[in-house]
Amino acid sequence: MSLVVVGSVAYDGVETPHGKVERMLGGACTYISLSAGYFTGVGIVAVVGEDFDPADREFLASRRIDLAGLETKPGKTFFWAGVYSEDMNDRTTLRTDLNVFADFEPRLPDHYRSQPYLLLGNIQPALQRGVREQMSGLKLAAGDTMNYWIRDYRAELLETIREWDCLIINDSEARMLAGQSNLRRAAAAILDLGPSTLVIKRGEYGALLFRRDRMFAAPAYLLDPVFDPTGAGDCFAGGFMGYLAQQGADRTPDQAGWKDLCRAVVYGSVMGSFCCEKFGVERFRTLTRAEIDSRFEEFRRFTEF
Amino acid sequence: MSLVVVGSVAYDGVETPHGKVERMLGGACTYISLSAGYFTGVGIVAVVGEDFDPADREFLASRRIDLAGLETKPGKTFFWAGVYSEDMNDRTTLRTDLNVFADFEPRLPDHYRSQPYLLLGNIQPALQRGVREQMSGLKLAAGDTMNYWIRDYRAELLETIREWDCLIINDSEARMLAGQSNLRRAAAAILDLGPSTLVIKRGEYGALLFRRDRMFAAPAYLLDPVFDPTGAGDCFAGGFMGYLAQQGADRTPDQAGWKDLCRAVVYGSVMGSFCCEKFGVERFRTLTRAEIDSRFEEFRRFTEF
Repeated sequence: MSLVVVGSVAYDGVETPHGKVERMLGGACTYISLSAGYFTGVGIVAVVGEDFDPADREFLASRRIDLAGLETKPGKTFFWAGVYSEDMNDRTTLRTDLNVFADFEPRLPDHYRSQPYLLLGNIQPALQRGVREQMSGLKLAAGDTMNYWIRDYRAELLETIREWDCLIINDSEARMLAGQSNLRRAAAAILDLGPSTLVIKRGEYGALLFRRDRMFAAPAYLLDPVFDPTGAGDCFAGGFMGYLAQQGADRTPDQAGWKDLCRAVVYGSVMGSFCCEKFGVERFRTLTRAEIDSRFEEFRRFTEF
Repeated sequence: MSLVVVGSVAYDGVETPHGKVERMLGGACTYISLSAGYFTGVGIVAVVGEDFDPADREFLASRRIDLAGLETKPGKTFFWAGVYSEDMNDRTTLRTDLNVFADFEPRLPDHYRSQPYLLLGNIQPALQRGVREQMSGLKLAAGDTMNYWIRDYRAELLETIREWDCLIINDSEARMLAGQSNLRRAAAAILDLGPSTLVIKRGEYGALLFRRDRMFAAPAYLLDPVFDPTGAGDCFAGGFMGYLAQQGADRTPDQAGWKDLCRAVVYGSVMGSFCCEKFGVERFRTLTRAEIDSRFEEFRRFTEF
């Protein structure tokens, strides 16, 4: 194991123009770990209820995922349900039952604390900070957040991300965090907040990578069709951080390290694209590393000029 | 001269968050020609009224732009006014006075008819078809259209674009034309309508290039700030077609020809980005080919991985 992942493990109900699933394995931590597990060993920190299906636990355990940090608490697992718009660019939340996730207190098993890589999924900023502080000898800490924390927990969030090496958010969140509609200016403002690397996810429009002295832009993979975009952003983050862990990246990249960051963005895009090809985590039941590398090369072909 | 450009020459009133200009030189044909003129000689086909400013005529004539096809008719020049939203992704038309453009009948000077390249700006499809038929010995014909013609002149439009080698439209137009929200499927459907090359402009998200057997994706250049997006799509088309004309492209590209198409998309993006840096055509008063090539190389740097 080299990468510790913190976040939600959940059950999701999802409806897209391609179909409907009442209840299936989901959650940011799940998607991140399944994705990152193609690149490196992962240790997860999450909480589930007594209703958590042993088959789902087995599925995760069958990958390079250490479940020592997966706590089971009395009660039910976090449940979320939502429906996507016709073009799948918008979604409406139908239900959010936090259940055992409401009192989530991330506790790291001892053997997690010395791992070199940390990816903090989107949870309460103070909890993210607490986890960061439990780690010693980190080579790279990255994290995600969302509009809710940016708007209502701003001070706490700023204190938290100040300690991160890399922030991974979407473009509307970047604009909100920076208070800047121009993305280039927003990126510059965010790099003043602490993280030396910023990744901006743009869904069907690709992703951007910023450091103070340079940037990189990757288009998205054009899927036909997109079945279910749930988890795509988390799979992006998992692929990105998993690849960096595989490469042994650290927080002061040289020219080769910069290329690794760019390739990590492309691997992130590749993992996000596979995620959308089936409902929920289904695509990861059959996906192979060879398929991933082949799509990575496809990205190279369709961006070279 | 090698490229014939047909479309509107107009006066525009534009308001963006960065300022307001009551009346300035504009129109698709103007932007396309100014942009393409950095790559090849251009002959324009357009109509203006008696109010057309001699200084504007001189400005165009000072570039590699042949004005033999610029007709002056009794009456006023086409006038358009619009205001952009705060993030500049939407605009509201305040006024459209077609004036002499209402009865535009494109007439090609004799020496235009044998030119190898044709770029049809967004005008009535039947007029576009009439121009295409006046040309002999074309190596490549490309054109633009818009939602209005797609919706209300569909049969006429389909008959027109069937004869084109390349269609250059934005993503919402591509989806509307194909009746397909998935862009990959939309592209495949459009390539069945006649054009062997399809370019989809996505504004701040870049551009896509499709042929039946391959595709290319370019991100957009991130500007700080965008002053005025008016004409950016036309400058993209002008840069794209101008570069192809400079390279002597033809309708059956080999591997080198494919690379030229990809580079033409990047040059198009470069020209669109410069266009947004000042109001109206102002940036083109000082822009040099060296600046263009330097930004082209910048694109290479921020897309290589």
